[in-house]
Amino acid sequence: MKAREIHLQSRPVGLPAAENFTLVEVDARAPQPGEVQVRNLWMSVDPYMRGRMYDRPSYVPPFQLGEALQGHAIGEVIASADDGFAAGDLVSSMWGWRDGFTAPAKTLEKLPRLEGVPVQAFLGVLGMPGLTAYTGLLEIGQPKAGETVFVSGGAGAVGSVVAQIAKIKGCTVVATAGSDAKCDWLRSVGVDHAINYKSGDLLGAVRAAAPQGIDVYFDNVGGEHLEVAIEVARGGARFAECGMISGYNATEPTPGPRNIMMVVGKSLKIQGFIVSNYGHLRPQFITDMSGWIAQGQVKWEETVLDGIEAAPDAFLNLFTGGNTGKMLVKL
Amino acid sequence: MKAREIHLQSRPVGLPAAENFTLVEVDARAPQPGEVQVRNLWMSVDPYMRGRMYDRPSYVPPFQLGEALQGHAIGEVIASADDGFAAGDLVSSMWGWRDGFTAPAKTLEKLPRLEGVPVQAFLGVLGMPGLTAYTGLLEIGQPKAGETVFVSGGAGAVGSVVAQIAKIKGCTVVATAGSDAKCDWLRSVGVDHAINYKSGDLLGAVRAAAPQGIDVYFDNVGGEHLEVAIEVARGGARFAECGMISGYNATEPTPGPRNIMMVVGKSLKIQGFIVSNYGHLRPQFITDMSGWIAQGQVKWEETVLDGIEAAPDAFLNLFTGGNTGKMLVKL
Repeated sequence: MKAREIHLQSRPVGLPAAENFTLVEVDARAPQPGEVQVRNLWMSVDPYMRGRMYDRPSYVPPFQLGEALQGHAIGEVIASADDGFAAGDLVSSMWGWRDGFTAPAKTLEKLPRLEGVPVQAFLGVLGMPGLTAYTGLLEIGQPKAGETVFVSGGAGAVGSVVAQIAKIKGCTVVATAGSDAKCDWLRSVGVDHAINYKSGDLLGAVRAAAPQGIDVYFDNVGGEHLEVAIEVARGGARFAECGMISGYNATEPTPGPRNIMMVVGKSLKIQGFIVSNYGHLRPQFITDMSGWIAQGQVKWEETVLDGIEAAPDAFLNLFTGGNTGKMLVKL
Repeated sequence: MKAREIHLQSRPVGLPAAENFTLVEVDARAPQPGEVQVRNLWMSVDPYMRGRMYDRPSYVPPFQLGEALQGHAIGEVIASADDGFAAGDLVSSMWGWRDGFTAPAKTLEKLPRLEGVPVQAFLGVLGMPGLTAYTGLLEIGQPKAGETVFVSGGAGAVGSVVAQIAKIKGCTVVATAGSDAKCDWLRSVGVDHAINYKSGDLLGAVRAAAPQGIDVYFDNVGGEHLEVAIEVARGGARFAECGMISGYNATEPTPGPRNIMMVVGKSLKIQGFIVSNYGHLRPQFITDMSGWIAQGQVKWEETVLDGIEAAPDAFLNLFTGGNTGKMLVKL
């Protein structure tokens, strides 16, 4: 089987660009015993992938030059030489930016076909971004009914789920996004205060939305957002540090929050987390999230580009505000 | 009874100076029913008092101009009109920078006279600084035997106790201080790596002391120390944010740690705390600390100035490195 892959051609400096990626056609061999051949249907691009483009030690190894970029994808089994899989099975993998591949069966996870839920939801609300939102908000943020939750990047794949789970938990929700249209969508799913952070005076807008301050901050953005969150935090507030996309393409170290000292006087907890360390929550997450979706309590948006060759553009869109909800590539 | 008090004359801008304080002689009236008259023996100056000199909302109200500064003191009852106290009783109070006062009995705490323990220890290892060290290290830092604990301001009243409790708990301890003499003292009480942070290249020195990284950071200093701690932190490290004395006299907002983004990838927990929220730990603290002192496992230094008129100088010494261990004023 012919397959097409996106390889990392060079490491981006600053904002990634087309020339950092290259499209390569390869032969995916027939599966050997214990292997499965998969045709991908959907692949995911996610902000954390930017970190793997740097050549540095981290919680996941860096992407290698000249190799296909890794990440979540959903596909269908074409041929199987393993008892656990049969042609037509829906599978999730981490083999990434390619439209097909042959791989050991143990690297695949079989997915159910759920009534009324499109398969690509396993890359979004029912996948890693959904579990990230669920874990960070509930395990780190520990919101209580009546509290105020602030989430940055509220219209993204993770932030939009955070905002809706916070509503389900009885919280007042303040969310930021990068356009008025995104803010309208946030209001349509129940967010109490949606703020277009590009309108200026973020601190003033958050203060107006949460005059009593915030109890939980779910951070996808970092930078000014983090400083504002520290400024408006109430005593004992919990910060779930999921990501800081505002700094992912920085070429120089950027100053941290100038008010970091308030961490002491306000007894703040600022805690980073990596969703892969919380796999034990997944069964409960799937149960909860399936129920919320079935009851219309969690909705989502997708931004879809077509074809493997569009994957670099899809990835770039994450940093330029080109997506509402989950950014996907349809293969 | 005549008493002398130090009043806040003006709010310091930047480093506090003599003219911010004034010595006032007052009449402490004879105790009314329910009141007690106290002659202070020792008073404490502590870094957190700098924060109370700003006129701003915080976890404790600001000091008021024209009034005596508050803080811990140890005294002896001179006269009592309350059944709970008798002349000669040793008491602790928060009435602060004065050599005597008359106050409601309920604002006083009676102290035991312990064999071999000087009374002023209740302002240090057995008092608020000791409980601060105990709480922050054990409750927030949660060190495990074999882990590496990094403490800044290691020769101060809090840091020196942190360092020694960490040794008792089986940790490797890296501590910073501002002179070679302080570092020598730290080594004499068992600190594995004492670093004079004024020698330059703090990051290099901490890396050399803890090549595998640190698991717990107890922060008294903030600023560059915090940035270094983030840089060398191992995954899942816990930061007990007790204070950031490097910034207490700043007149402009200072940049936060440039590597704050590492909080995410390293799954760090950076948590501020205020010891007054952990009063429930005090009985266990007194039991543990008394035992450690009796067995010679916790030692301490004092830096003592004489007379109430020396209180402003004593306070200023906290910011210029003039103290090793607990800074005290003997009255």
